[in-house]
Amino acid sequence: MGSLAERKINKCFFECTDCGKQYRDVDFMYLCPLCSEKNKPDVPPAGVLKTVYDYAGILPGLEGLEKFKALKQDHFLDLLPVRKTESFGYLRVGNTPLYKISEIERNKPAFTLWVKDDSQNPTFSFKDRASVLVSAYAREHVISVIVAASTGNAGSSLAGVCASQGQRAVIVVPESIPRAKLLQMLMYGAIPVLVKGNYDMAFEISLQLTRKYGWLNRNTAFNPFTIEGKKTVSFEIFEQTSGQLPDMIFVPVGDGVILSGVYKGFEDLLMLGIIHQIPRIIAVQSESSDNLVRNFGKEEFIIKPATTIADSISVDVPRCFNMAVKYLKKYQGSGITVSDHEIISASKILAGSSGIFAEPAASAAMAGFIKYWNTGMIPANSSVLVLSTGSGLKDLNAPLSTLTMPDSMEPDAELVGNYLESRHLL
Amino acid sequence: MGSLAERKINKCFFECTDCGKQYRDVDFMYLCPLCSEKNKPDVPPAGVLKTVYDYAGILPGLEGLEKFKALKQDHFLDLLPVRKTESFGYLRVGNTPLYKISEIERNKPAFTLWVKDDSQNPTFSFKDRASVLVSAYAREHVISVIVAASTGNAGSSLAGVCASQGQRAVIVVPESIPRAKLLQMLMYGAIPVLVKGNYDMAFEISLQLTRKYGWLNRNTAFNPFTIEGKKTVSFEIFEQTSGQLPDMIFVPVGDGVILSGVYKGFEDLLMLGIIHQIPRIIAVQSESSDNLVRNFGKEEFIIKPATTIADSISVDVPRCFNMAVKYLKKYQGSGITVSDHEIISASKILAGSSGIFAEPAASAAMAGFIKYWNTGMIPANSSVLVLSTGSGLKDLNAPLSTLTMPDSMEPDAELVGNYLESRHLL
Repeated sequence: MGSLAERKINKCFFECTDCGKQYRDVDFMYLCPLCSEKNKPDVPPAGVLKTVYDYAGILPGLEGLEKFKALKQDHFLDLLPVRKTESFGYLRVGNTPLYKISEIERNKPAFTLWVKDDSQNPTFSFKDRASVLVSAYAREHVISVIVAASTGNAGSSLAGVCASQGQRAVIVVPESIPRAKLLQMLMYGAIPVLVKGNYDMAFEISLQLTRKYGWLNRNTAFNPFTIEGKKTVSFEIFEQTSGQLPDMIFVPVGDGVILSGVYKGFEDLLMLGIIHQIPRIIAVQSESSDNLVRNFGKEEFIIKPATTIADSISVDVPRCFNMAVKYLKKYQGSGITVSDHEIISASKILAGSSGIFAEPAASAAMAGFIKYWNTGMIPANSSVLVLSTGSGLKDLNAPLSTLTMPDSMEPDAELVGNYLESRHLL
Repeated sequence: MGSLAERKINKCFFECTDCGKQYRDVDFMYLCPLCSEKNKPDVPPAGVLKTVYDYAGILPGLEGLEKFKALKQDHFLDLLPVRKTESFGYLRVGNTPLYKISEIERNKPAFTLWVKDDSQNPTFSFKDRASVLVSAYAREHVISVIVAASTGNAGSSLAGVCASQGQRAVIVVPESIPRAKLLQMLMYGAIPVLVKGNYDMAFEISLQLTRKYGWLNRNTAFNPFTIEGKKTVSFEIFEQTSGQLPDMIFVPVGDGVILSGVYKGFEDLLMLGIIHQIPRIIAVQSESSDNLVRNFGKEEFIIKPATTIADSISVDVPRCFNMAVKYLKKYQGSGITVSDHEIISASKILAGSSGIFAEPAASAAMAGFIKYWNTGMIPANSSVLVLSTGSGLKDLNAPLSTLTMPDSMEPDAELVGNYLESRHLL
């Protein structure tokens, strides 16, 4: 018995995004030592690693859907750097709903619109996919503390997952962190470390703590398994569309790790011969945080300081820039930017048309889709997927700032009726 | 073909909790007209109806687990006032995870502890169970507007569900409603009506609008289908424990509708011979909102104004008092109260031990369980379930008020390490 996953320990190896060097016979690595040595601030870091599997050796007797079903049966252990399903613990991470939305603001699109609702995760965001994989790896390697630098969702996600696994989460955060985000980490029993400095300083401290204490580091686009965790969404999309992948997928982008994760999942399926084409992926950024899309295809990387209200995608130097850009080029993806106003408006359109309340960062994908739709560039009979990555409850401040309070009225049904009728609300 | 549900239209009838009168050959009713006529403010309303089915006629050829499986196969349509599954729309309501928690603050209980996490619903609360049933009923009866009085979660739940079903939600709220709660309703495209007055006035206006416009009313413990929607949690508990029901269930209580719903689900299973005993249910209230537990078994109902921070269970006159109390008596349930301090503390214990971040109202159940556990009254080898009814993100203010900010530090790994070590955090 036993799947390939259980039989092999070093079932994966690492490949540098930048120099292409492969690191085999090593159980785990962060960045490519050669490329990362030369990393400088203000430039996207080189040396982010891709986790590669022995694709030819995975269930060689099976093909297509049958192969996929066998992988799924085994919880995709053949494609994850984890040996046993039990290592993931008990929280229901992933397997989030995919909804087919037939009307947007009472308009019926001529194409099929899917929305993947990743707010339905234990800590209410997509980041749980990365956290649970890192946590499972730590558990199998008897590492009891996981450290991360974070400005919000990644930290509370790691904190929640560690709580369920009996692990300690140490979250290094800039001291300016909003109290509500800090609260979530504290509720989950994490140890927050508030440093006088910005995210980059928090990142640096997290690395030093990792080295000093031998903890596992979950920093995004630093620990390659964050990408491996995030790729699981693509396996679910394949399954939930019965293998009829959407033609286009809109993905919100900050550091570019979710984008890279989505691509990586599809690339795994491509390497296994389960799919033959990767959907066209549209990277959506805020105009006020567009350092990935704006620098895409350029010779020199130029920072425009991020100011967007969508804090989960507010990034100056996208840490997964190189990998994300390579994927976009290789598989004919593209980028689009939307204004903060369009993001809040899209959040309201999505919630009001589907019942999915998404945080601003997540709504950026919806805003990108709407902008695209308005240009008339979505063919009839095609299919489009919007990836919604976190709950609107995570960040109420941005939409609150745009809220106009309705009038209040005397408690009189006649008056109330007249009001509703006069406003054509009925 | 066609299940019993599809074949019969009037498959259920209504029975008054107070006078016992049965209303057959009627498709739908709110309160018992005889009993509700005499209702006065400051006393729990009489006339709340129980929805009763022709239990003997439901799958008479099947027994026990087989009968349950057949019911489940048919999405429990035989036990719901809805004719087709499609009427529920596409949102994934219910089927929330049930987790077995092995450690609480590093202590391993000698009994089995289950936590049912109903924050994993589309609008992040248990209330979606009631909203989706009312919405499905409205859809089958071509009613396009649903109205409700609400101070928060019920309103945003209805708003979200209606958005997904192409229905209009009109939510009558006291003008003092927190802006964050109002925001959620607005994002979902609901029409909020702010009245100058309290919840009771909002309730009264919602009734008048219902009569005037022929809308469906979703008020809790007024529309009997709110109880029918909530009962589905008990079917899931039966399934997820493989029929080995827990010995005790801790339920947070405000109006008493969730409690009644949990009982109703088990009572349906009892009437069908699928179970032979109903678990012992402990109604948990805040000491600062204890009008159900304190008046349980008393001759005269005396109000103590509710002041609890757990706003979803802050209730002066529990609208489902009579039904909840009858159930508690009939099935040997009991009540317990906890302080607001214990509630916040329990929320932290739950999140830190399991990764489930629950709102204060939901954490009341956990606090009740902990209090009970501390008395030593939970036998070894028994099993206990805590019902967690909503996401902690829904109400951050209560725990925020207890938050002590950690010190911030210079970005120096040595300093940070010393700090962590000196605090024995490692």
